[in-house]
Amino acid sequence: MDRALDEARAAAARGEVPVGAVLVGPDGAVIAADGNRTRAGHDPTAHAEMLVIRAGCAVLGVERLTGCDLYVTLEPCAMCAAAISAARVARVYYGAGDPKSGGVAHGARVFSHPQCHHVPEIYDGIGGAESEALLRAFFAARRGATGAEGI
Amino acid sequence: MDRALDEARAAAARGEVPVGAVLVGPDGAVIAADGNRTRAGHDPTAHAEMLVIRAGCAVLGVERLTGCDLYVTLEPCAMCAAAISAARVARVYYGAGDPKSGGVAHGARVFSHPQCHHVPEIYDGIGGAESEALLRAFFAARRGATGAEGI
Repeated sequence: MDRALDEARAAAARGEVPVGAVLVGPDGAVIAADGNRTRAGHDPTAHAEMLVIRAGCAVLGVERLTGCDLYVTLEPCAMCAAAISAARVARVYYGAGDPKSGGVAHGARVFSHPQCHHVPEIYDGIGGAESEALLRAFFAARRGATGAEGI
Repeated sequence: MDRALDEARAAAARGEVPVGAVLVGPDGAVIAADGNRTRAGHDPTAHAEMLVIRAGCAVLGVERLTGCDLYVTLEPCAMCAAAISAARVARVYYGAGDPKSGGVAHGARVFSHPQCHHVPEIYDGIGGAESEALLRAFFAARRGATGAEGI
């Protein structure tokens, strides 16, 4: 998760929402690591989770990341949760919960329906305070420090 | 929708699940059209809708497809529905419903939660019979015609 937090900080430095993700293989080796890139890439799908899933599949030449784990600093949204399921990621470790836009423990709760064909193990709250602090600082700065109701 | 069905047929010819999508601009011009490419690209996120959203944003140099419409032959899954919302697509026209994997009228019902920050207008059932026939034929052929419980 430390590496994912580094990626979140790097995203903030690029002016992107500070969320970072790391994909780890069954042997514990890092396969892919990245942060949000929606603005730079003009790509609303370029969330950190999507980028590491796509990069991981490309590196391994597979469509399914069986046995791989994903670390992400913020609760995945519905898009990323469904992509995690489609990619058959084994375990998801996430930092801060996201009551505003989350799709795992909030809102669409993507893993809680029979239309979800693979449910990963979920571990939440790991590095959550640091992740939330990054997000709050980012949104506070963007809003001229008038409000920090960012995430 | 005829163009989307053509893309679905082209996807089937490539050995991909036959789903096609077309993104149309506010002036009615086609901005992007594609079919599923998950297998060829080793990319579980390469659903037709994701590809035309990403291509459309790249073509226009924007993160938001305000005023654009998306035609897709099958009900979007949760991943694609959330991407449609993130991209601020104005209207979604889809063909067949997808009780097994859909995320609009089934399962996660992505647009039905406050965590979804943009809800497009939805029009379903357009070209649905043709879309379903394509999917059934594809899965029947893949299963050696022993069962057509594909979609």
